[in-house]
Amino acid sequence: MINTILNHRSIRNYKSDPVNTDLLNEILEAGSRASTTGNMQVYSMIVTTEQKLKEKLWEKHFKQSMVKQAPVVVTFCADFNRFNKWCKQRKAEPGYDNYLSFFTAAIDALLVAQNVALAAESKGLGICYLGTTTYMAKEISAILQLPEAVIPVATLVMGYPEEMPDLTDRLPMEAIVHNEIYHDFKPEDIDRIYAKREASDETRALLEENQKETLAQIFTDNRYTKKDNEFFSEKFLGFIREQGFGI
Amino acid sequence: MINTILNHRSIRNYKSDPVNTDLLNEILEAGSRASTTGNMQVYSMIVTTEQKLKEKLWEKHFKQSMVKQAPVVVTFCADFNRFNKWCKQRKAEPGYDNYLSFFTAAIDALLVAQNVALAAESKGLGICYLGTTTYMAKEISAILQLPEAVIPVATLVMGYPEEMPDLTDRLPMEAIVHNEIYHDFKPEDIDRIYAKREASDETRALLEENQKETLAQIFTDNRYTKKDNEFFSEKFLGFIREQGFGI
Repeated sequence: MINTILNHRSIRNYKSDPVNTDLLNEILEAGSRASTTGNMQVYSMIVTTEQKLKEKLWEKHFKQSMVKQAPVVVTFCADFNRFNKWCKQRKAEPGYDNYLSFFTAAIDALLVAQNVALAAESKGLGICYLGTTTYMAKEISAILQLPEAVIPVATLVMGYPEEMPDLTDRLPMEAIVHNEIYHDFKPEDIDRIYAKREASDETRALLEENQKETLAQIFTDNRYTKKDNEFFSEKFLGFIREQGFGI
Repeated sequence: MINTILNHRSIRNYKSDPVNTDLLNEILEAGSRASTTGNMQVYSMIVTTEQKLKEKLWEKHFKQSMVKQAPVVVTFCADFNRFNKWCKQRKAEPGYDNYLSFFTAAIDALLVAQNVALAAESKGLGICYLGTTTYMAKEISAILQLPEAVIPVATLVMGYPEEMPDLTDRLPMEAIVHNEIYHDFKPEDIDRIYAKREASDETRALLEENQKETLAQIFTDNRYTKKDNEFFSEKFLGFIREQGFGI
Protein backbone atom coordinates (compact mmCIF):
# COMPACT_ATOMS: atom_id res chain seq x y z
CA MET A 1 0.00 0.00 0.00
CA ILE A 2 2.57 2.52 1.05
CA ASN A 3 4.58 1.52 -2.05
CA THR A 4 1.69 2.50 -4.27
CA ILE A 5 1.70 5.91 -2.59
CA LEU A 6 5.48 6.30 -2.84
CA ASN A 7 5.52 5.33 -6.52
CA HIS A 8 2.94 7.85 -7.67
CA ARG A 9 3.79 9.82 -10.80
CA SER A 10 1.38 11.77 -12.98
CA ILE A 11 0.92 10.00 -16.32
CA ARG A 12 0.37 12.16 -19.39
CA ASN A 13 0.61 9.47 -22.12
CA TYR A 14 -1.76 6.52 -22.26
CA LYS A 15 -2.13 3.34 -24.25
CA SER A 16 -5.37 3.04 -26.21
CA ASP A 17 -6.45 -0.06 -24.20
CA PRO A 18 -9.78 0.52 -22.47
CA VAL A 19 -10.23 -0.04 -18.74
CA ASN A 20 -12.35 -3.10 -18.05
CA THR A 21 -15.75 -2.24 -16.52
CA ASP A 22 -15.39 -4.58 -13.55
CA LEU A 23 -11.99 -3.12 -12.72
CA LEU A 24 -13.32 0.42 -13.04
CA ASN A 25 -16.25 -0.39 -10.75
CA GLU A 26 -13.89 -1.91 -8.19
CA ILE A 27 -11.82 1.28 -8.24
CA LEU A 28 -14.86 3.56 -7.90
CA GLU A 29 -16.18 1.44 -5.07
CA ALA A 30 -12.83 1.84 -3.30
CA GLY A 31 -13.42 5.58 -3.71
CA SER A 32 -16.70 5.29 -1.85
CA ARG A 33 -14.97 3.88 1.27
CA ALA A 34 -13.41 7.27 2.04
CA SER A 35 -14.60 9.10 5.14
CA THR A 36 -17.24 11.74 4.47
CA THR A 37 -18.81 14.28 6.82
CA GLY A 38 -21.54 12.55 8.82
CA ASN A 39 -21.45 9.76 6.20
CA MET A 40 -23.63 12.02 4.07
CA GLN A 41 -21.56 11.23 0.97
CA VAL A 42 -22.26 14.62 -0.55
CA TYR A 43 -20.21 14.05 -3.68
CA SER A 44 -20.57 12.40 -7.05
CA MET A 45 -18.28 10.91 -9.69
CA ILE A 46 -19.04 11.39 -13.37
CA VAL A 47 -17.30 8.73 -15.45
CA THR A 48 -16.83 9.83 -19.05
CA THR A 49 -15.50 7.43 -21.68
CA GLU A 50 -17.33 8.46 -24.89
CA GLN A 51 -14.84 10.03 -27.25
CA LYS A 52 -17.13 12.90 -28.26
CA LEU A 53 -17.79 13.90 -24.68
CA LYS A 54 -14.11 13.56 -23.78
CA GLU A 55 -13.31 15.91 -26.66
CA LYS A 56 -15.74 18.47 -25.32
CA LEU A 57 -14.11 18.19 -21.90
CA TRP A 58 -10.65 18.37 -23.49
CA GLU A 59 -11.58 21.67 -25.09
CA LYS A 60 -12.44 23.12 -21.66
CA HIS A 61 -9.47 21.59 -19.84
CA PHE A 62 -7.14 23.89 -21.80
CA LYS A 63 -6.73 21.15 -24.47
CA GLN A 64 -4.47 18.99 -22.34
CA SER A 65 -3.95 16.01 -24.65
CA MET A 66 -4.44 13.31 -22.02
CA VAL A 67 -8.13 14.24 -21.68
CA LYS A 68 -8.73 13.00 -25.21
CA GLN A 69 -6.19 10.20 -25.04
CA ALA A 70 -6.89 8.53 -21.69
CA PRO A 71 -9.77 6.04 -21.92
CA VAL A 72 -11.46 7.26 -18.71
CA VAL A 73 -12.11 10.73 -17.34
CA VAL A 74 -13.63 10.98 -13.86
CA THR A 75 -15.00 14.31 -12.67
CA PHE A 76 -15.40 14.57 -8.89
CA CYS A 77 -18.13 16.90 -7.73
CA ALA A 78 -19.23 18.50 -4.48
CA ASP A 79 -22.87 17.42 -4.62
CA PHE A 80 -25.75 18.38 -2.34
CA ASN A 81 -28.36 17.78 -5.06
CA ARG A 82 -29.15 14.18 -4.11
CA PHE A 83 -29.08 14.91 -0.38
CA ASN A 84 -31.37 17.94 -0.76
CA LYS A 85 -33.84 15.93 -2.85
CA TRP A 86 -33.85 13.20 -0.20
CA CYS A 87 -34.51 15.74 2.58
CA LYS A 88 -37.40 17.34 0.70
CA GLN A 89 -38.92 13.93 0.00
CA ARG A 90 -38.69 13.10 3.73
CA LYS A 91 -40.38 16.12 5.33
CA ALA A 92 -37.03 17.68 6.18
CA GLU A 93 -35.97 21.21 5.21
CA PRO A 94 -32.38 21.18 3.91
CA GLY A 95 -30.19 24.07 5.06
CA TYR A 96 -27.26 23.48 2.74
CA ASP A 97 -27.41 26.53 0.49
CA ASN A 98 -24.35 28.13 2.05
CA TYR A 99 -20.58 28.24 1.73
CA LEU A 100 -19.79 25.81 4.57
CA SER A 101 -21.94 23.15 2.94
CA PHE A 102 -20.17 23.63 -0.40
CA PHE A 103 -16.77 23.33 1.28
CA THR A 104 -17.85 20.25 3.26
CA ALA A 105 -18.99 18.60 0.04
CA ALA A 106 -15.73 19.57 -1.68
CA ILE A 107 -13.76 17.87 1.11
CA ASP A 108 -15.86 14.72 0.64
CA ALA A 109 -15.22 14.75 -3.13
CA LEU A 110 -11.46 15.29 -2.78
CA LEU A 111 -10.88 12.49 -0.28
CA VAL A 112 -12.83 10.17 -2.58
CA ALA A 113 -10.74 11.33 -5.55
CA GLN A 114 -7.49 10.44 -3.82
CA ASN A 115 -8.88 7.00 -2.89
CA VAL A 116 -9.77 6.45 -6.55
CA ALA A 117 -6.34 7.64 -7.69
CA LEU A 118 -4.55 5.21 -5.37
CA ALA A 119 -6.90 2.30 -6.06
CA ALA A 120 -6.30 2.81 -9.79
CA GLU A 121 -2.53 2.97 -9.34
CA SER A 122 -2.55 -0.15 -7.19
CA LYS A 123 -4.16 -1.94 -10.15
CA GLY A 124 -1.49 -0.87 -12.62
CA LEU A 125 -3.32 2.11 -14.08
CA GLY A 126 -1.82 5.56 -14.41
CA ILE A 127 -3.60 8.74 -13.39
CA CYS A 128 -3.28 12.49 -13.70
CA TYR A 129 -5.18 15.26 -11.93
CA LEU A 130 -6.44 18.19 -13.98
CA GLY A 131 -6.03 21.48 -12.11
CA THR A 132 -8.17 23.16 -14.74
CA THR A 133 -11.38 21.81 -13.17
CA THR A 134 -11.96 24.78 -10.85
CA TYR A 135 -10.99 27.30 -13.55
CA MET A 136 -13.56 25.89 -15.93
CA ALA A 137 -16.15 24.58 -13.48
CA LYS A 138 -19.03 26.36 -15.20
CA GLU A 139 -18.21 25.10 -18.70
CA ILE A 140 -17.50 21.55 -17.49
CA SER A 141 -20.81 21.56 -15.63
CA ALA A 142 -22.64 22.51 -18.82
CA ILE A 143 -21.10 19.56 -20.69
CA LEU A 144 -21.83 17.09 -17.88
CA GLN A 145 -25.31 18.59 -17.29
CA LEU A 146 -24.72 19.15 -13.58
CA PRO A 147 -27.84 20.37 -11.77
CA GLU A 148 -28.02 23.02 -9.03
CA ALA A 149 -25.97 22.27 -5.89
CA VAL A 150 -23.35 20.29 -7.86
CA ILE A 151 -19.86 21.71 -8.54
CA PRO A 152 -16.88 19.91 -10.09
CA VAL A 153 -13.76 20.29 -7.93
CA ALA A 154 -11.26 17.77 -9.35
CA THR A 155 -10.80 15.59 -12.42
CA LEU A 156 -8.73 12.44 -12.86
CA VAL A 157 -7.83 10.92 -16.19
CA MET A 158 -6.86 7.26 -16.03
CA GLY A 159 -5.70 4.42 -18.23
CA TYR A 160 -2.74 2.17 -18.91
CA PRO A 161 0.49 4.20 -18.91
CA GLU A 162 2.46 4.60 -22.13
CA GLU A 163 5.33 6.21 -20.18
CA MET A 164 7.03 5.86 -16.81
CA PRO A 165 8.44 9.27 -15.93
CA ASP A 166 10.88 9.76 -13.05
CA LEU A 167 9.42 10.60 -9.68
CA THR A 168 9.10 14.37 -9.41
CA ASP A 169 11.10 16.11 -6.70
CA ARG A 170 9.56 17.21 -3.44
CA LEU A 171 10.63 19.87 -0.97
CA PRO A 172 12.41 18.52 2.13
CA MET A 173 10.09 17.44 4.94
CA GLU A 174 11.10 20.45 7.07
CA ALA A 175 9.30 22.63 4.52
CA ILE A 176 5.93 20.99 4.98
CA VAL A 177 5.91 19.47 8.49
CA HIS A 178 5.74 21.57 11.66
CA ASN A 179 6.25 20.07 15.10
CA GLU A 180 3.57 20.88 17.68
CA ILE A 181 2.83 24.38 16.31
CA TYR A 182 3.70 26.35 13.15
CA HIS A 183 7.31 27.50 12.97
CA ASP A 184 7.51 30.33 10.51
CA PHE A 185 10.38 30.57 8.05
CA LYS A 186 13.38 32.89 8.26
CA PRO A 187 15.03 34.00 5.02
CA GLU A 188 17.81 31.42 5.49
CA ASP A 189 15.19 28.66 5.98
CA ILE A 190 13.62 29.58 2.64
CA ASP A 191 17.04 29.53 0.96
CA ARG A 192 17.83 26.09 2.40
CA ILE A 193 14.41 24.58 1.62
CA TYR A 194 14.42 25.61 -2.04
CA ALA A 195 18.17 25.13 -2.68
CA LYS A 196 17.98 21.67 -4.24
CA ARG A 197 15.01 22.44 -6.47
CA GLU A 198 16.60 25.69 -7.62
CA ALA A 199 19.92 24.03 -8.45
CA SER A 200 18.40 21.22 -10.52
CA ASP A 201 19.01 20.71 -14.23
CA GLU A 202 15.28 21.01 -14.79
CA THR A 203 15.24 24.48 -13.24
CA ARG A 204 18.27 25.53 -15.25
CA ALA A 205 16.50 24.44 -18.45
CA LEU A 206 13.30 26.26 -17.45
CA LEU A 207 15.13 29.51 -16.72
CA GLU A 208 16.88 29.32 -20.07
CA GLU A 209 13.69 28.51 -21.95
CA ASN A 210 11.64 31.24 -20.25
CA GLN A 211 14.43 33.80 -20.04
CA LYS A 212 13.83 34.33 -16.34
CA GLU A 213 16.20 35.07 -13.48
CA THR A 214 14.52 32.92 -10.80
CA LEU A 215 12.31 29.84 -10.70
CA ALA A 216 9.78 31.73 -8.57
CA GLN A 217 9.30 34.21 -11.44
CA ILE A 218 8.24 31.37 -13.72
CA PHE A 219 5.38 30.70 -11.30
CA THR A 220 4.37 34.33 -10.73
CA ASP A 221 4.92 35.63 -14.28
CA ASN A 222 4.06 32.63 -16.47
CA ARG A 223 2.28 29.73 -14.82
CA TYR A 224 0.06 31.15 -12.08
CA THR A 225 -0.21 34.89 -12.59
CA LYS A 226 -2.07 37.32 -10.35
CA LYS A 227 -4.22 38.37 -13.30
CA ASP A 228 -5.32 34.81 -14.13
CA ASN A 229 -5.85 33.92 -10.48
CA GLU A 230 -8.07 36.93 -9.95
CA PHE A 231 -10.03 36.24 -13.12
CA PHE A 232 -10.63 32.58 -12.25
CA SER A 233 -11.39 33.43 -8.62
CA GLU A 234 -14.31 35.63 -9.65
CA LYS A 235 -15.45 33.05 -12.19
CA PHE A 236 -15.36 30.18 -9.69
CA LEU A 237 -17.00 32.19 -6.90
CA GLY A 238 -19.69 33.31 -9.33
CA PHE A 239 -20.42 29.71 -10.26
CA ILE A 240 -20.53 28.61 -6.60
CA ARG A 241 -23.19 31.30 -6.08
CA GLU A 242 -25.09 30.32 -9.25
CA GLN A 243 -25.23 26.72 -8.11
CA GLY A 244 -27.03 27.86 -4.99
CA PHE A 245 -24.33 28.03 -2.33
CA GLY A 246 -24.79 31.67 -1.24
CA ILE A 247 -21.55 33.47 -0.38
CA MET B 1 -3.35 -1.45 -1.17
CA ILE B 2 -6.95 -1.65 -2.24
CA ASN B 3 -7.59 -3.76 0.88
CA THR B 4 -6.37 -0.94 3.09
CA ILE B 5 -8.86 1.35 1.35
CA LEU B 6 -11.72 -1.16 1.62
CA ASN B 7 -11.05 -1.79 5.32
CA HIS B 8 -11.17 1.84 6.41
CA ARG B 9 -13.20 2.61 9.49
CA SER B 10 -13.02 5.75 11.63
CA ILE B 11 -11.43 4.94 14.99
CA ARG B 12 -12.66 6.85 18.04
CA ASN B 13 -10.88 4.89 20.81
CA TYR B 14 -7.11 4.63 20.97
CA LYS B 15 -4.53 2.77 23.02
CA SER B 16 -2.12 4.97 24.95
CA ASP B 17 0.90 3.61 23.00
CA PRO B 18 2.75 6.42 21.24
CA VAL B 19 3.50 6.30 17.52
CA ASN B 20 7.19 5.76 16.86
CA THR B 21 8.86 8.81 15.30
CA ASP B 22 10.37 6.92 12.36
CA LEU B 23 7.00 5.40 11.54
CA LEU B 24 5.31 8.79 11.79
CA ASN B 25 7.90 10.35 9.49
CA GLU B 26 7.44 7.55 6.96
CA ILE B 27 3.68 8.20 6.98
CA LEU B 28 4.08 11.97 6.58
CA GLU B 29 6.56 11.45 3.77
CA ALA B 30 4.00 9.23 2.02
CA GLY B 31 1.66 12.22 2.37
CA SER B 32 4.11 14.39 0.48
CA ARG B 33 4.01 12.12 -2.59
CA ALA B 34 0.46 13.27 -3.42
CA SER B 35 -0.05 15.34 -6.56
CA THR B 36 -0.18 19.07 -5.95
CA THR B 37 -0.97 21.91 -8.36
CA GLY B 38 2.18 22.72 -10.33
CA ASN B 39 4.15 20.79 -7.68
CA MET B 40 3.94 23.97 -5.59
CA GLN B 41 3.11 21.95 -2.47
CA VAL B 42 1.08 24.80 -1.02
CA TYR B 43 0.09 22.95 2.15
CA SER B 44 1.52 22.16 5.55
CA MET B 45 1.02 19.51 8.22
CA ILE B 46 1.16 20.45 11.89
CA VAL B 47 1.91 17.41 14.03
CA THR B 48 0.76 17.88 17.61
CA THR B 49 1.59 15.30 20.29
CA GLU B 50 2.07 17.41 23.48
CA GLN B 51 -0.80 16.70 25.83
CA LYS B 52 -1.35 20.35 26.78
CA LEU B 53 -1.61 21.44 23.15
CA LYS B 54 -3.85 18.50 22.31
CA GLU B 55 -6.15 19.56 25.14
CA LYS B 56 -6.36 23.07 23.74
CA LEU B 57 -7.24 21.61 20.34
CA TRP B 58 -9.74 19.22 21.96
CA GLU B 59 -11.53 22.19 23.50
CA LYS B 60 -11.98 23.74 20.04
CA HIS B 61 -12.87 20.50 18.26
CA PHE B 62 -16.16 20.38 20.19
CA LYS B 63 -14.48 18.27 22.91
CA GLN B 64 -14.40 15.09 20.84
CA SER B 65 -12.58 12.72 23.19
CA MET B 66 -10.25 11.21 20.60
CA VAL B 67 -8.43 14.53 20.22
CA LYS B 68 -7.13 14.19 23.78
CA GLN B 69 -6.80 10.43 23.68
CA ALA B 70 -5.08 9.74 20.35
CA PRO B 71 -1.29 10.17 20.60
CA VAL B 72 -1.01 12.18 17.36
CA VAL B 73 -3.12 14.99 15.92
CA VAL B 74 -2.22 16.22 12.42
CA THR B 75 -3.73 19.48 11.17
CA PHE B 76 -3.62 19.88 7.37
CA CYS B 77 -3.46 23.45 6.16
CA ALA B 78 -3.86 25.28 2.87
CA ASP B 79 -0.58 27.22 3.02
CA PHE B 80 0.69 29.94 0.69
CA ASN B 81 2.89 31.49 3.41
CA ARG B 82 6.07 29.61 2.51
CA PHE B 83 5.52 30.00 -1.23
CA ASN B 84 4.85 33.74 -0.91
CA LYS B 85 7.99 34.22 1.18
CA TRP B 86 10.01 32.33 -1.41
CA CYS B 87 8.62 34.48 -4.24
CA LYS B 88 9.41 37.73 -2.42
CA GLN B 89 12.93 36.53 -1.68
CA ARG B 90 13.41 35.73 -5.39
CA LYS B 91 12.37 39.00 -7.03
CA ALA B 92 8.93 37.59 -7.88
CA GLU B 93 5.63 39.23 -6.97
CA PRO B 94 3.20 36.61 -5.63
CA GLY B 95 -0.40 36.95 -6.83
CA TYR B 96 -1.98 34.43 -4.48
CA ASP B 97 -4.13 36.65 -2.27
CA ASN B 98 -7.37 35.47 -3.85
CA TYR B 99 -10.03 32.80 -3.51
CA LEU B 100 -8.77 30.51 -6.28
CA SER B 101 -5.37 30.30 -4.63
CA PHE B 102 -6.94 29.38 -1.30
CA PHE B 103 -9.04 26.67 -2.94
CA THR B 104 -6.03 25.34 -4.88
CA ALA B 105 -4.06 25.09 -1.65
CA ALA B 106 -7.00 23.40 0.09
CA ILE B 107 -7.09 20.74 -2.65
CA ASP B 108 -3.35 20.15 -2.15
CA ALA B 109 -3.83 19.77 1.61
CA LEU B 110 -6.78 17.38 1.29
CA LEU B 111 -5.11 15.00 -1.18
CA VAL B 112 -2.09 14.89 1.15
CA ALA B 113 -4.39 14.21 4.12
CA GLN B 114 -5.93 11.19 2.43
CA ASN B 115 -2.47 9.84 1.55
CA VAL B 116 -1.49 10.20 5.20
CA ALA B 117 -4.70 8.49 6.36
CA LEU B 118 -4.12 5.50 4.09
CA ALA B 119 -0.39 5.25 4.81
CA ALA B 120 -1.21 5.23 8.54
CA GLU B 121 -3.88 2.56 8.12
CA SER B 122 -1.56 0.42 6.01
CA LYS B 123 0.83 0.43 8.98
CA GLY B 124 -1.80 -0.76 11.46
CA LEU B 125 -2.74 2.64 12.86
CA GLY B 126 -6.29 3.88 13.14
CA ILE B 127 -7.41 7.35 12.05
CA CYS B 128 -10.38 9.65 12.31
CA TYR B 129 -11.10 12.91 10.47
CA LEU B 130 -12.40 15.86 12.48
CA GLY B 131 -15.07 17.76 10.55
CA THR B 132 -14.87 20.52 13.13
CA THR B 133 -11.69 21.93 11.56
CA THR B 134 -13.45 24.33 9.19
CA TYR B 135 -15.99 25.38 11.86
CA MET B 136 -13.21 26.35 14.25
CA ALA B 137 -10.47 27.31 11.80
CA LYS B 138 -9.83 30.66 13.48
CA GLU B 139 -9.48 29.27 17.00
CA ILE B 140 -7.37 26.31 15.85
CA SER B 141 -5.10 28.71 13.97
CA ALA B 142 -4.58 30.75 17.12
CA ILE B 143 -3.46 27.65 19.05
CA LEU B 144 -1.16 26.46 16.29
CA GLN B 145 0.12 30.01 15.64
CA LEU B 146 -0.66 29.90 11.94
CA PRO B 147 0.58 32.99 10.07
CA GLU B 148 -1.21 34.88 7.29
CA ALA B 149 -2.04 32.80 4.18
CA VAL B 150 -2.39 29.58 6.19
CA ILE B 151 -5.80 28.00 6.89
CA PRO B 152 -6.53 24.62 8.48
CA VAL B 153 -8.91 22.55 6.34
CA ALA B 154 -8.78 19.03 7.82
CA THR B 155 -7.52 17.26 10.93
CA LEU B 156 -6.62 13.61 11.43
CA VAL B 157 -6.14 11.97 14.79
CA MET B 158 -4.12 8.76 14.71
CA GLY B 159 -2.85 6.02 16.97
CA TYR B 160 -3.22 2.32 17.69
CA PRO B 161 -6.92 1.34 17.68
CA GLU B 162 -8.58 0.23 20.92
CA GLU B 163 -11.69 -0.82 18.96
CA MET B 164 -12.56 -2.37 15.61
CA PRO B 165 -16.02 -1.09 14.68
CA ASP B 166 -17.99 -2.59 11.81
CA LEU B 167 -17.59 -1.01 8.41
CA THR B 168 -20.14 1.78 8.07
CA ASP B 169 -22.74 1.46 5.36
CA ARG B 170 -22.48 3.30 2.07
CA LEU B 171 -25.13 4.26 -0.44
CA PRO B 172 -25.34 1.99 -3.50
CA MET B 173 -22.95 2.92 -6.31
CA GLU B 174 -25.83 4.18 -8.50
CA ALA B 175 -26.24 7.03 -5.98
CA ILE B 176 -22.73 8.37 -6.45
CA VAL B 177 -21.57 7.29 -9.92
CA HIS B 178 -22.97 8.79 -13.13
CA ASN B 179 -22.19 7.34 -16.54
CA GLU B 180 -20.94 9.81 -19.15
CA ILE B 181 -23.01 12.77 -17.84
CA TYR B 182 -25.07 13.51 -14.72
CA HIS B 183 -28.38 11.66 -14.52
CA ASP B 184 -30.60 13.48 -12.12
CA PHE B 185 -32.75 11.59 -9.63
CA LYS B 186 -36.47 10.97 -9.86
CA PRO B 187 -38.44 10.55 -6.63
CA GLU B 188 -38.43 6.76 -7.04
CA ASP B 189 -34.64 6.80 -7.50
CA ILE B 190 -34.26 8.63 -4.18
CA ASP B 191 -36.55 6.11 -2.48
CA ARG B 192 -34.56 3.18 -3.84
CA ILE B 193 -31.14 4.67 -3.07
CA TYR B 194 -31.92 5.42 0.56
CA ALA B 195 -34.11 2.36 1.23
CA LYS B 196 -31.46 0.17 2.85
CA ARG B 197 -30.03 2.90 5.04
CA GLU B 198 -33.49 3.97 6.15
CA ALA B 199 -34.54 0.42 7.03
CA SER B 200 -31.46 -0.34 9.13
CA ASP B 201 -31.52 -1.07 12.86
CA GLU B 202 -29.21 1.87 13.39
CA THR B 203 -31.72 4.24 11.78
CA ARG B 204 -34.56 2.77 13.80
CA ALA B 205 -32.58 3.37 17.00
CA LEU B 206 -31.74 6.95 15.95
CA LEU B 207 -35.36 7.80 15.18
CA GLU B 208 -36.43 6.45 18.54
CA GLU B 209 -33.67 8.26 20.41
CA ASN B 210 -34.25 11.59 18.64
CA GLN B 211 -38.03 11.27 18.41
CA LYS B 212 -38.00 12.01 14.69
CA GLU B 213 -40.14 10.73 11.85
CA THR B 214 -37.40 10.47 9.20
CA LEU B 215 -33.65 9.98 9.13
CA ALA B 216 -33.29 13.10 6.96
CA GLN B 217 -34.82 15.17 9.78
CA ILE B 218 -32.02 14.06 12.09
CA PHE B 219 -29.58 15.67 9.67
CA THR B 220 -31.56 18.86 9.03
CA ASP B 221 -32.90 19.40 12.57
CA ASN B 222 -30.14 18.02 14.79
CA ARG B 223 -26.78 17.34 13.19
CA TYR B 224 -26.29 19.88 10.40
CA THR B 225 -28.85 22.62 10.85
CA LYS B 226 -29.36 25.61 8.57
CA LYS B 227 -28.68 27.95 11.46
CA ASP B 228 -25.34 26.35 12.35
CA ASN B 229 -24.30 26.07 8.72
CA GLU B 230 -24.99 29.74 8.12
CA PHE B 231 -23.19 30.76 11.28
CA PHE B 232 -20.10 28.69 10.49
CA SER B 233 -20.17 29.76 6.82
CA GLU B 234 -19.80 33.41 7.80
CA LYS B 235 -17.14 32.54 10.37
CA PHE B 236 -15.08 30.47 7.92
CA LEU B 237 -15.42 33.00 5.08
CA GLY B 238 -14.42 35.77 7.47
CA PHE B 239 -11.31 33.86 8.45
CA ILE B 240 -10.39 33.13 4.81
CA ARG B 241 -10.55 36.90 4.24
CA GLU B 242 -8.58 37.69 7.42
CA GLN B 243 -5.82 35.34 6.33
CA GLY B 244 -5.41 37.38 3.17
CA PHE B 245 -7.35 35.47 0.53
CA GLY B 246 -9.67 38.25 -0.64
CA ILE B 247 -13.20 37.10 -1.51
